[in-house]
Amino acid sequence: MAVVGLGLMGGSLAAALKARQACATVTGIARRPATIEAASRLGYIDHGTTDLAAVAEADIVILATPVRTILSTLPDLAPLLPPGCLLMDLGSTKGRIAQAMNALPEQVHPCPAHPMCGKEVAGLEAADPDLYEGKTFVLTPLLRTPPAAVARAEELARAVGAVPRRLDPRRHDRLVAVGSHLPYLLALGLVATAEEVGREDCLLWDVVASGFRDTSRLAASDVQMMLDVLMTNSTAIAEAIDRFREQLEGVERLLVAGDEAELQRIMQAAAIRRSAAFRPRLQQAP
Amino acid sequence: MAVVGLGLMGGSLAAALKARQACATVTGIARRPATIEAASRLGYIDHGTTDLAAVAEADIVILATPVRTILSTLPDLAPLLPPGCLLMDLGSTKGRIAQAMNALPEQVHPCPAHPMCGKEVAGLEAADPDLYEGKTFVLTPLLRTPPAAVARAEELARAVGAVPRRLDPRRHDRLVAVGSHLPYLLALGLVATAEEVGREDCLLWDVVASGFRDTSRLAASDVQMMLDVLMTNSTAIAEAIDRFREQLEGVERLLVAGDEAELQRIMQAAAIRRSAAFRPRLQQAP
Repeated sequence: MAVVGLGLMGGSLAAALKARQACATVTGIARRPATIEAASRLGYIDHGTTDLAAVAEADIVILATPVRTILSTLPDLAPLLPPGCLLMDLGSTKGRIAQAMNALPEQVHPCPAHPMCGKEVAGLEAADPDLYEGKTFVLTPLLRTPPAAVARAEELARAVGAVPRRLDPRRHDRLVAVGSHLPYLLALGLVATAEEVGREDCLLWDVVASGFRDTSRLAASDVQMMLDVLMTNSTAIAEAIDRFREQLEGVERLLVAGDEAELQRIMQAAAIRRSAAFRPRLQQAP
Repeated sequence: MAVVGLGLMGGSLAAALKARQACATVTGIARRPATIEAASRLGYIDHGTTDLAAVAEADIVILATPVRTILSTLPDLAPLLPPGCLLMDLGSTKGRIAQAMNALPEQVHPCPAHPMCGKEVAGLEAADPDLYEGKTFVLTPLLRTPPAAVARAEELARAVGAVPRRLDPRRHDRLVAVGSHLPYLLALGLVATAEEVGREDCLLWDVVASGFRDTSRLAASDVQMMLDVLMTNSTAIAEAIDRFREQLEGVERLLVAGDEAELQRIMQAAAIRRSAAFRPRLQQAP
């Protein structure tokens, strides 16, 4: 097993595989020697190197870098991969990656993936062997992906405690536009609005309460990762923004018109929906 | 001391005063006998009653109900208040309350207030004697409020561990429209958008991740409390929504146009601003 990129996602995956003794050896590949040293010291990897050629020894290769780094790495990586190798990635958008992986040499078995977990802090220091525990691990196998390779990818997802779930790449991208990218943009817009108002009245930052803290948390996300996400999913995101804007404008109209009964109905429905969505639930059967 | 309303805010205030032995006796006044029994059992109050007339014995009366309940209670309450009594409230908007308290009989000393703390769960069960610890406790004294009464209100804020901060009621309402009410409406709009998309594709709720959970948390707020907040601050809220919409549209334009450099600049500024705003900081001097 080789993990390319030892940030939050790659570092956590390596750590989870080692902690659960899920595979014989984990090789970590990263740009900076200091990252490799840290990952070795933490016991997350068995070997480490800055040389991409190390993938030649692996049965499974996992790309855990930002989306556009994955896209730009693929041409260099392709000739290095051994025949029959399962190639996965953990990128946050899947359309462009699925397209690029479809063009790989036939003897490579690609299975793009996106585990639905993360933190707003990036880097190996934030890595956690339990990051994947109980989380949905989306797999977007291609038509060319052999069933045995998909089964192996599912096995890997379960090995780190996650629940695998197959999805079409486009469907995945439409869903995460609403479930992940829209929340980020709302947090970004909220902080930008507060920044503007705070320039007019410096007391603003003294009266922001815990609600602001929660709603704005995603604005502190890793910029490079999020920029890759936004630039590779802009169509679905623009649609999600439009839907959101309609909802917000509807609420604003009711508020200005003083239509309290309808406003209350919408608020109640959202409160119930929000509470139901994050009620602790039984682990899904695999 | 009499606390009218033993929900999250009133219950926590009573609990904090008792825990810090900050006043001789705390009388709790609530609509439901079961609430009074529970508050007594928890040791948050010395006496409890459903009868508003109990305020006649108090030096300080604190109204801790939703904003419009405060407004509708004032006419009944006014003739019951003893001369020289400090009357405070903990309502989330201050303009309408300041206006109403300005019309109270001259021998009452009103000092509207709004502690900047809360949870998305309501009720006495969620009360916490440490809720106010380190939080900004906004006071919006009126022109008629005697300096000694303001000083007493500040003393009370400090007694529960909070940091008092005087503000004009209108200024307060404009600031919380951005700092509290806008975040709620974004959470509400996000959940409503997800609900709509989830009706078209039921897998949506399987792929929402921790980012959605944080950003949407406020949508589970107490509906009655939030409805009072929205209906008593609609002008400032509509202005906050307009400012936010401009920010979101600006980001969407950059995204669709592929102006990556400017998008990155905005994202980086927000990430820095968000991290700075919630960095642990030294307690402000009183």
